[in-house]
Amino acid sequence: MIRLNCSLLLQESDNRKPLIEAATELVELSLRDKGCIEYDLYGSLTNDDRLMIVETWKSQKDLKEHMASEHFLRLVPKIQSLAEMTLEQFDF
Amino acid sequence: MIRLNCSLLLQESDNRKPLIEAATELVELSLRDKGCIEYDLYGSLTNDDRLMIVETWKSQKDLKEHMASEHFLRLVPKIQSLAEMTLEQFDF
Repeated sequence: MIRLNCSLLLQESDNRKPLIEAATELVELSLRDKGCIEYDLYGSLTNDDRLMIVETWKSQKDLKEHMASEHFLRLVPKIQSLAEMTLEQFDF
Repeated sequence: MIRLNCSLLLQESDNRKPLIEAATELVELSLRDKGCIEYDLYGSLTNDDRLMIVETWKSQKDLKEHMASEHFLRLVPKIQSLAEMTLEQFDF
């Protein structure tokens, strides 16, 4: 399986609401993708500018297909325009 | 380095406030521990009963020392009495 920790650091606090809207839509649509075991958006409880998407995928193939989906290609650039994204992948 | 994803699932929504208090204290004290690179508490933005502590440690030795600290031994049992804890460790 694959765990992704996708950190999102807001550059401007005003971007928090549109970021949460875009990321929440990505969560809802990605949960329906083949091989998606877990996909959720979290907000730091000590720093409002720090958020994280935590994802679990069955296989690299499923993750690759997710990354070619309409919702990924539409929403990820939007999210990246609102926050600095750092993606870390762990295989287990 | 070591990444920990420590999922916390509330059994009762009333436990959310005391859980956040105990986990926030753990975050503050653990950030001072030797070898702690990152330590933060996150709450799911789609489900109030789901929280996560995300930690990054320099080495297994540092993590072991943290797990023997007064604050770990005092606060983790308290957290576990309030939520179901699932710990996943990734080496990178």
